[in-house]
Amino acid sequence: MPELRQNFMTKEWVVIATERAKRPDQMVMHRELKPAVSFSEKCPFCPGHESQTPPEILRLHDGEGWKARVIPNKFAALSPDVKPERNIRRSLRSMGGFGEHDVIVETPDHSLAMANMPDSHVADILRVYKTRYDQLSLDPRIAQVTIFKNHGVDAGTSLEHPHSQMIATPVISYQVRQRFQEAMQHYDDFGCCIYCQTIDEELNDQKRIVVTSEHFVAMELFASPAPFCTHIYPRRHMASFGDISSSEIAELGRVLRTVLAKLYIGLDNPDFNFTIRTAPAECVGVRYFHWYMSVIPRLTRTAGFELGSGMFINTVIPEEAAEFLRNVKVETAVGVS
Amino acid sequence: MPELRQNFMTKEWVVIATERAKRPDQMVMHRELKPAVSFSEKCPFCPGHESQTPPEILRLHDGEGWKARVIPNKFAALSPDVKPERNIRRSLRSMGGFGEHDVIVETPDHSLAMANMPDSHVADILRVYKTRYDQLSLDPRIAQVTIFKNHGVDAGTSLEHPHSQMIATPVISYQVRQRFQEAMQHYDDFGCCIYCQTIDEELNDQKRIVVTSEHFVAMELFASPAPFCTHIYPRRHMASFGDISSSEIAELGRVLRTVLAKLYIGLDNPDFNFTIRTAPAECVGVRYFHWYMSVIPRLTRTAGFELGSGMFINTVIPEEAAEFLRNVKVETAVGVS
Repeated sequence: MPELRQNFMTKEWVVIATERAKRPDQMVMHRELKPAVSFSEKCPFCPGHESQTPPEILRLHDGEGWKARVIPNKFAALSPDVKPERNIRRSLRSMGGFGEHDVIVETPDHSLAMANMPDSHVADILRVYKTRYDQLSLDPRIAQVTIFKNHGVDAGTSLEHPHSQMIATPVISYQVRQRFQEAMQHYDDFGCCIYCQTIDEELNDQKRIVVTSEHFVAMELFASPAPFCTHIYPRRHMASFGDISSSEIAELGRVLRTVLAKLYIGLDNPDFNFTIRTAPAECVGVRYFHWYMSVIPRLTRTAGFELGSGMFINTVIPEEAAEFLRNVKVETAVGVS
Repeated sequence: MPELRQNFMTKEWVVIATERAKRPDQMVMHRELKPAVSFSEKCPFCPGHESQTPPEILRLHDGEGWKARVIPNKFAALSPDVKPERNIRRSLRSMGGFGEHDVIVETPDHSLAMANMPDSHVADILRVYKTRYDQLSLDPRIAQVTIFKNHGVDAGTSLEHPHSQMIATPVISYQVRQRFQEAMQHYDDFGCCIYCQTIDEELNDQKRIVVTSEHFVAMELFASPAPFCTHIYPRRHMASFGDISSSEIAELGRVLRTVLAKLYIGLDNPDFNFTIRTAPAECVGVRYFHWYMSVIPRLTRTAGFELGSGMFINTVIPEEAAEFLRNVKVETAVGVS
């Protein structure tokens, strides 16, 4: 029988559509294998082509070369040279398109998916995120920093070379503001962080857990809007990604790599996005919000119902997705189970 | 220079990305022409195959045959046979998947896009929507009815035969609730409907208007989240689509067909969704909400930034999209300009 489920944290409803339900293994991509090329003459992100990108912001050195680079996006959505001034003419509300738009080139290897990197390299990339996140958050003109990765055409990128992005905006988005409001309301009503409470309950329930480690928990959401949408939460209460410690970053590298490898192996390298949902800079220390990573495989398309209602229809039962991913064997480091 | 724009009605921000900006004509699909077939042996929606669908709910007669049919979706997301009972176990919030999921087969002709139908036939389809919408809204177990159309693979459908859908849910979605809250706040602050105000101001400004008629206005949004996203508003204040009059429906048929034909001709039959955003049944008479149709061509993909922030990046300037669509010549009936 179909079921409606409400996301406890965002209050959004989803339809778990059992009449249309698919077994997790029906979602496997069955891709044609492409030969892996570690260098492409045409790729601006490959080593030796550094002059084809705008001037480097940050580099993770590797002897004479580099392990990762941060550069401004050549086709930036926002510009650091515009003033973030509001312009209000009755119903027309706008603002100068101030902002920063970085690209993080994750590796010199043109076709090394994050799922196949050493855990320590994934941790290095997360360290680069944090360094740049901290820098951007200090700018008083910046209100929100969104870190994200697009992998594959269905996830919105045509560039093959492994990369992620970071966009800093002078406004807090409506979605982030609303999630904050809901979390604050819960704190005011019950005196606890709604995310901490959910993590505790999910660990007791076990059914939707995918990977655990000392400091992190990866799980399918009870009210997951899409198949295999996987969240990674720090167990310790932290509102901002900027609060992560050095040892926690190393561990997150292992957990994130394990989750991505399970998706890569289990679903045959699906297109996916991930994003870090974190408190805006002005709310760094709040007790009611809790940062996390959201990994979203792009296996289905949003259609008119989703656009018209904001409700999603999920055809894979989250408990079955979790079991499927738990059973995908990945070579994992010590301390991740 | 890039610009941030805030949707006055929903308070959502979008990035108008001029560095990535495309001229409207760069968004044309350039499809391979497929021969139009008006009948397909394999299609369950073609005439003569009526027994392949679940029993008919409603039929628009055409002599011995039919002009349009409403049938239950064979793969319904929700079921009328489940009780809409809440189940609350701490953070796990769910409800029986009660609901109705109709398919509206819009025409017997297998490949007649709505853009190419006679205006009067589009009006007939809208009349079918209203009849079924009124029926569903009367059921006290139903809280919200979402009417939508998916046209093409990128809009979430693989079925070619022209059809639209209607899903009735026992809950009001978070997105609808939030838009209501914002509109109510505006009414309480300023004593007027935020939609009526915006329509007035847009008619004065003219820059984003695409089509006008006696009772309707079609326009690009100032803060349009995606290229060529076009809204059709009734000029008269009405909270619910159910309040539309018979003569207004005839006119909406002409206006909607004109908008769809402009997209079809101008952009070469793009995939698109449309949806009717209307007050939930319990709020039929409110002064602060105003129903409308939203037509959303699916020319771009949502990526990690959109998922992570809820903000969209639009690469076509709305004023240029409006001018482009105004200049697409469509044979229009009297009273639509």
